[in-house]
Amino acid sequence: MISGKEKDYFEDCELGETLRSNGRTVAEADIHQFAGLTGDWNPLHTDAEFAKKGLFGERIAHGPLIFSLGIGLSVQIPNALPKHFIAAYGIDRVRFTAPTKIGDTIYAQLEVVKLDAKDDNLGVVTTEVKVINQRDETVCSYLAKAAVARRPKS
Amino acid sequence: MISGKEKDYFEDCELGETLRSNGRTVAEADIHQFAGLTGDWNPLHTDAEFAKKGLFGERIAHGPLIFSLGIGLSVQIPNALPKHFIAAYGIDRVRFTAPTKIGDTIYAQLEVVKLDAKDDNLGVVTTEVKVINQRDETVCSYLAKAAVARRPKS
Amino acid sequence: MISGKEKDYFEDCELGETLRSNGRTVAEADIHQFAGLTGDWNPLHTDAEFAKKGLFGERIAHGPLIFSLGIGLSVQIPNALPKHFIAAYGIDRVRFTAPTKIGDTIYAQLEVVKLDAKDDNLGVVTTEVKVINQRDETVCSYLAKAAVARRPKS
Amino acid sequence: MISGKEKDYFEDCELGETLRSNGRTVAEADIHQFAGLTGDWNPLHTDAEFAKKGLFGERIAHGPLIFSLGIGLSVQIPNALPKHFIAAYGIDRVRFTAPTKIGDTIYAQLEVVKLDAKDDNLGVVTTEVKVINQRDETVCSYLAKAAVARRPKS
Amino acid sequence: MISGKEKDYFEDCELGETLRSNGRTVAEADIHQFAGLTGDWNPLHTDAEFAKKGLFGERIAHGPLIFSLGIGLSVQIPNALPKHFIAAYGIDRVRFTAPTKIGDTIYAQLEVVKLDAKDDNLGVVTTEVKVINQRDETVCSYLAKAAVARRPKS
Amino acid sequence: MISGKEKDYFEDCELGETLRSNGRTVAEADIHQFAGLTGDWNPLHTDAEFAKKGLFGERIAHGPLIFSLGIGLSVQIPNALPKHFIAAYGIDRVRFTAPTKIGDTIYAQLEVVKLDAKDDNLGVVTTEVKVINQRDETVCSYLAKAAVARRPKS
Repeated sequence: MISGKEKDYFEDCELGETLRSNGRTVAEADIHQFAGLTGDWNPLHTDAEFAKKGLFGERIAHGPLIFSLGIGLSVQIPNALPKHFIAAYGIDRVRFTAPTKIGDTIYAQLEVVKLDAKDDNLGVVTTEVKVINQRDETVCSYLAKAAVARRPKS
Repeated sequence: MISGKEKDYFEDCELGETLRSNGRTVAEADIHQFAGLTGDWNPLHTDAEFAKKGLFGERIAHGPLIFSLGIGLSVQIPNALPKHFIAAYGIDRVRFTAPTKIGDTIYAQLEVVKLDAKDDNLGVVTTEVKVINQRDETVCSYLAKAAVARRPKS
Repeated sequence: MISGKEKDYFEDCELGETLRSNGRTVAEADIHQFAGLTGDWNPLHTDAEFAKKGLFGERIAHGPLIFSLGIGLSVQIPNALPKHFIAAYGIDRVRFTAPTKIGDTIYAQLEVVKLDAKDDNLGVVTTEVKVINQRDETVCSYLAKAAVARRPKS
Repeated sequence: MISGKEKDYFEDCELGETLRSNGRTVAEADIHQFAGLTGDWNPLHTDAEFAKKGLFGERIAHGPLIFSLGIGLSVQIPNALPKHFIAAYGIDRVRFTAPTKIGDTIYAQLEVVKLDAKDDNLGVVTTEVKVINQRDETVCSYLAKAAVARRPKS
Repeated sequence: MISGKEKDYFEDCELGETLRSNGRTVAEADIHQFAGLTGDWNPLHTDAEFAKKGLFGERIAHGPLIFSLGIGLSVQIPNALPKHFIAAYGIDRVRFTAPTKIGDTIYAQLEVVKLDAKDDNLGVVTTEVKVINQRDETVCSYLAKAAVARRPKS
Repeated sequence: MISGKEKDYFEDCELGETLRSNGRTVAEADIHQFAGLTGDWNPLHTDAEFAKKGLFGERIAHGPLIFSLGIGLSVQIPNALPKHFIAAYGIDRVRFTAPTKIGDTIYAQLEVVKLDAKDDNLGVVTTEVKVINQRDETVCSYLAKAAVARRPKS
């Protein structure tokens, strides 16, 4: 894990700061739990016989599971965002670029790619997140936008 | 629920087709399960005392949970996509527009907003998805892109 | 709870023996977990808004969940069956006779209703199981058949 | 999957209509989850060392889990029942005919075997369900009875 | 399993009584579920790549999971404590003495090691619990203290 | 939350350092999940009708669940222990001092109470942990012992 530097306000964020989460192995149980929670029992994810004959030769994790795990791994990195974080603003360009198979281990790699001061009170920090597996393949990527308070002028 | 019309190929998709999933109540248990699965135990979602004093006055569901439920509800709509569906291409412009509280019921409303023939073999269908609650508020929206086979020319 | 008498063989079973399990409250979480495990997200069980307008005025538990809980509560009763129990033979006449709502507490009441010696080695014990709630309503009933060894003739 | 034909009333049901659900792999996690939900921690299902020395040489799934998965797979088949379905009437002759081991994949095969008009308003549709594994063995079977409205005489 | 003798009061407890629970296999799913429930996603337990390079060469279960399973296995032993059991008094000297790996099977072995009459109404029964795996290694041990009523005089 | 100061070795630990975790609401779903995981379905925890007539007038959480949540909340505090942490050494004097009811919110409060240099390489840090609820009652307490490396003498 590479933690962030402590920071208070939008002004303390730095373009190019790069963080890295812990890893997490994706278990068959995780896929079944996510299928259960969302109701998405597509046989691509949960029918081993069907998946055997398909493109990947075995079951793969749901894309939104990997995306959700990416978010979860990110928020566990200390000081990823300033203390005066206001809200998750939205997510752009979610792409599923490679399959995640049962037993793969993934981690999230974050890079601050845009700092956009909206007005005197608020800035938007855009972080590019890559979910990467143990073979260094990017399996999912997205841009996360966070609204952050600007440092008050005294 | 409003199911889709049966369709085989990209050519069978229609701009403006509108579908609607079943509803699903978001339980405290779902929020704890999602926190567990992803490791995102932000007190905004799972600490009732903390949330009481916050912006919403009570705990709210994780954004990515609502997004994932939106996907899950969508894939349970019969014939939402043509039979010759190839792959989920990506998701754009995920926005979290209102909080989901414990006990709220959500459903997914889909509208085909773009049909983009890439070449003779492949088209991309873009669907705008709105996750809507029992008070008719849109709590999350996104654009889902699916690669679909074109009808073979014989 | 009313436990069974210790018994070794088919010959030790008594027509009319009556047992009673502990109680168990059926939580919203149990219904969501069962919906997840089985993929049965019928809105009758998991959409509070839909259920409000339906026959029961609120969500009810899945029938097979109540049946499964009945089996689970039964097997936790000590000495319900003889030590030389061989196998669960089958289940007959499963009937869902009243709804189970969120927060109801159920227990299983068992009565041995038939003892059928098949041959010198094997007998079948038929137990009538009633799943009963805190208002003394029978919500599910069934006949469970168990194959049990006969006492060896020395 | 073989979906049903769209049908409105009891009169639209056909003796011999045969449907087939998607498949679903039974994970160790599913067995532990079901043991947890029901409290049935019989070592036959959840103690690998005990099961190694037993009849099947390894752990097997709980019968009521396979039965519940059979129901869950069935209700996910589009148009298995007419729109004017009233209620699940009951289940008869549940039989556990072969073990399900960790990693087996099962699906439900349905055949309408009896159509019984009760009166001018109501009919009972009896469906024989076989839960079948990837080796084409029937692991569980039962008769599911559904009350369905008759077509109104105008 | 070695069950306890039926006993009513503190006076019926015997120093040296030894009980043994059923076994239970520890699944990867159990470790992920416990990580989820408690928020303890230490990579030692849930990151296969990290664990590969560590002291044990693979992932191991959380200590408190094994402790909790030990308690759970113990309470399932019939007659482990007298009927007039009042309360779990506390736990002393919890020690984690060997790792539990995915797929290991554990059981709880109990021995009454101290009987301490506090006054005319109450006694404390101290039980040494060893959680043992299929290789007969003690993986966790602790002393469980239970308050039990004394037999009324007259 | 009160995080720890960054520290490398045993020598950097300070007697009296006090930390505080985030809070976490204990849901009915958590109690059912823990009952499921451990098999401890004591009606005190999971039978609302039984609990209504008991000492506390309602269901209460399992002691080992609260203990496990205390551990889980503690490990989420950044810098609770030095980087050269070696192993959790054991837990002493676990006491359950007040009930936790459904909907209560708990957090863990840590205080370093003993620093014990064993030899030139190793020290033991003893932390008193109190699990406290929203009414400032201590519901569980214990002493956690951690083995930590001493600063190398160069």
